Amino acid sequence: MGSTTNQTFDEFLSTTRTISDLTAASSVLGWDQETYMPDGAAEERAEQIATLNALIHQMMTSDKAGKLVEELVSNGSAADLSEWQIAALREFSREREQAVKLPDEFVREMSKVTSLAQQSWKKARSKSDFSIFRDNLAKIIDIKRRHAQYLGYKENPYDALIDLYEPGMKVEQLRPVFERLQEGTARLLDKIDQSGADISDAVLFTDFDPSAQLSFAREVIKKLGFNFTDGRVDLSTHPFCASFGIRDVRLTTRVYRDDLRSCLFGLIHEAGHGMYEQGIDKAYSRTPLADGTSMGIHESQSLFWENMVGRSLEFWKWAYPSLQSQFPERLSDISADSFFRIVNVMKSSMIRVEADELTYNLHIILRFEIEDDLINGRMNVDDIPEAWNTKMEEYLGITPANDAEGCLQDVHWSFGGHGYFPSYSLGKLYAAMFYQAMLKDLPEHHKQIERGEFGDLLSWLREKVHRWGKAKSPAELTNEICGEPLSEGAFLTYIEKKINQVYYNQT
Amino acid sequence: MGSTTNQTFDEFLSTTRTISDLTAASSVLGWDQETYMPDGAAEERAEQIATLNALIHQMMTSDKAGKLVEELVSNGSAADLSEWQIAALREFSREREQAVKLPDEFVREMSKVTSLAQQSWKKARSKSDFSIFRDNLAKIIDIKRRHAQYLGYKENPYDALIDLYEPGMKVEQLRPVFERLQEGTARLLDKIDQSGADISDAVLFTDFDPSAQLSFAREVIKKLGFNFTDGRVDLSTHPFCASFGIRDVRLTTRVYRDDLRSCLFGLIHEAGHGMYEQGIDKAYSRTPLADGTSMGIHESQSLFWENMVGRSLEFWKWAYPSLQSQFPERLSDISADSFFRIVNVMKSSMIRVEADELTYNLHIILRFEIEDDLINGRMNVDDIPEAWNTKMEEYLGITPANDAEGCLQDVHWSFGGHGYFPSYSLGKLYAAMFYQAMLKDLPEHHKQIERGEFGDLLSWLREKVHRWGKAKSPAELTNEICGEPLSEGAFLTYIEKKINQVYYNQT
Repeated sequence: MGSTTNQTFDEFLSTTRTISDLTAASSVLGWDQETYMPDGAAEERAEQIATLNALIHQMMTSDKAGKLVEELVSNGSAADLSEWQIAALREFSREREQAVKLPDEFVREMSKVTSLAQQSWKKARSKSDFSIFRDNLAKIIDIKRRHAQYLGYKENPYDALIDLYEPGMKVEQLRPVFERLQEGTARLLDKIDQSGADISDAVLFTDFDPSAQLSFAREVIKKLGFNFTDGRVDLSTHPFCASFGIRDVRLTTRVYRDDLRSCLFGLIHEAGHGMYEQGIDKAYSRTPLADGTSMGIHESQSLFWENMVGRSLEFWKWAYPSLQSQFPERLSDISADSFFRIVNVMKSSMIRVEADELTYNLHIILRFEIEDDLINGRMNVDDIPEAWNTKMEEYLGITPANDAEGCLQDVHWSFGGHGYFPSYSLGKLYAAMFYQAMLKDLPEHHKQIERGEFGDLLSWLREKVHRWGKAKSPAELTNEICGEPLSEGAFLTYIEKKINQVYYNQT
Repeated sequence: MGSTTNQTFDEFLSTTRTISDLTAASSVLGWDQETYMPDGAAEERAEQIATLNALIHQMMTSDKAGKLVEELVSNGSAADLSEWQIAALREFSREREQAVKLPDEFVREMSKVTSLAQQSWKKARSKSDFSIFRDNLAKIIDIKRRHAQYLGYKENPYDALIDLYEPGMKVEQLRPVFERLQEGTARLLDKIDQSGADISDAVLFTDFDPSAQLSFAREVIKKLGFNFTDGRVDLSTHPFCASFGIRDVRLTTRVYRDDLRSCLFGLIHEAGHGMYEQGIDKAYSRTPLADGTSMGIHESQSLFWENMVGRSLEFWKWAYPSLQSQFPERLSDISADSFFRIVNVMKSSMIRVEADELTYNLHIILRFEIEDDLINGRMNVDDIPEAWNTKMEEYLGITPANDAEGCLQDVHWSFGGHGYFPSYSLGKLYAAMFYQAMLKDLPEHHKQIERGEFGDLLSWLREKVHRWGKAKSPAELTNEICGEPLSEGAFLTYIEKKINQVYYNQT
């Protein structure tokens, strides 16, 4: 590599390291806000995060950064760069182009409004009172519409927002996939109905000591491969995974005494995200490549561990005796096989994060449609509660009793995460596609899981997905691993097999 | 106020707000590092904090900031500013001037040397081998001498270093005060000796359940007035108070099963710092005034609550029944009156941080004299161990058995904190002076404490000290509250009264 290029690339890296450090700082402040921050600090914290984000934005969009990128790209000197260096440059340029489009003042406004909105959302949800959140949400919707205009789009302003989470994805590509997914889901719900099987999961909602739940869940993710030397687990209202570096990955979970699923599957889910972050090539530390390549791919990793592993029969053959010994009063009469069925009950329910694998996508399609309408100005803030409830009735056959179990249930809109929801269903589709590919490479994986051995599985994901960070795009990964682009087929095949196991006793 | 001045001051404030937000972010990262951060994150975190601190330094010393200050000061437009605005400008200028005086190269060298020195100090202390630390300490002494030269001084280069912690304080002012303090202390130690009383505090070092200790200490500081809506308490290896804003004040403590003092008095001490931060006028949020005015004044607040309140007879009349009920096995045979004596035992000991109220100052005077000699070139690094031990024998009548309990005991010199130690004794003197003034305004305060009522006391400190933040200098505060400058008299009066209580049973 030419020494001038070398020097320019070093300068480029030095800039991206500063940005990476400030981004990490902003994330620490965000994590603290959700875990330990005292209530009184909300306003000052909002300002601090806004300041950091404004500085990051300034540096991303600075002429200096622009010139460095230009020099490395257009002088043809990119030919002197290694593969990862080119990828780092590409990722930085992509993010920089998006950032350049947003005026400083707008970024500051967005950061401040969303930071405050999160506090009002918490209050609104706890009191099940949409009016508490209403004004903040109205501001956010207005901001997101302007956000889309700034970013630009060809067909649909909502595309611009989806692209922030799933680079390259568009409403027109998603809609037919979601339509087929919705049809397939309806067909499978019928199939479940026709089985006549009525599996009660009532035992999950009895009484389980919270600290025993948490320690069991922690033991499980440790076994799966989450590294506690480079990460930790805390409690928060809404579970999430935050990474402040490849060696500092924080998970949060919540524990309900009367819901055995929430803490365990929530933590396995977040650990899936966390293991992705921990698996990124350490050489990418503090570069633009040190992150998951998209929200959809990120979600594929969390769902892979939560569902393909954590809700498999083999997993429960291994894990159940330990769970049973924690809660003998509740579980001594239930077999591993039955427990597997119990945690795979598929039926309509109100809360997205508590939904089963099958009906979950309907919750996403509902949000996708509402967001599409909001961003396109076909719907306004005051219409949300009714639209939500109508679609719930239409798609899932149930109506929320209040907004806490309706349109206030998710944190996403409070931080302006419009365009994020589709990633969850993309994650399901990617996960099933990767799972199909994994089955070919690791035909013995079922037996390993049954013995509590997850090393080969994790190594496979590390090799195929994790280590690349952002060095490969979602489309590249999917094509390389599966030999085909995104589709709903693998998911429907996977879930139908599980329905056969759960509802038709096929093994 | 003229509208041009107005506009310039707004620009000035906007700059200082950014600096304040970055400083808060750096503090959050530092706090997290000491409380929750996973071990693996150490390297990435060090980079993040270094990046934030470099940015803060850049902004402090920027031409832009310099021009704004110059414009506000030298154009005579300061006349248009309000009192707090002038104070904010003065504080920022002072800190900026100090920062500007240091060449970048020197700051880097200092940071590198002290970072290495901290490692060698740890090793030296754990092996009790001064020679391991010797070369690094020699470099640091050289650096601190140059530091003083860069900062500038009139009479004594050590003044320049003390000024970093106690603005305006000088060796020539301190020396006679410390001499009289030392004489008074010697006299009082004789008085204790002549009492013939031999109070054993052995019970404090038996066995106390850590979680019961912590919850008792938390209850106490809540009663004293530490606001948990705007703050919280966590555990760390070394106790500290960190403020990320007036409404976000974090305390840490540590709990030893075999030392009842550490958690309780440590937390009361940190809560004293914390209540100072929480009491600053909220209008000063994110300005250069939103901090304690000096290390000495800060320490006066922590010591006021720890000693004047937390080690008073009245306090234990109120708090002891509750402590006793927590630890009936240990404390049922001991009365409140006896317990008050037990926590006030005064006798010479080797370790500064474990010293009692009276002998503590001798540890400081020893360090003050050695630092003064070192910075003035009258002493060199190799003389330290002997000078230390000679002074220990002379002032406290005991000689360290090794350097770990002698000149290697404190972390301060390893990070180049020369000039810091005097603040601790200044804190004791200020606290006693404020206490004397308080007695005139609140003659009933003893009775209130006996009833567990601390509201009037806290309001008094808020009004006189806390709310001003950095808007008043230490000297201004002392003169306004006490009508006289710094002296040792109030402390000696206060401590003699306590000696009469503890060793002569006078009430």
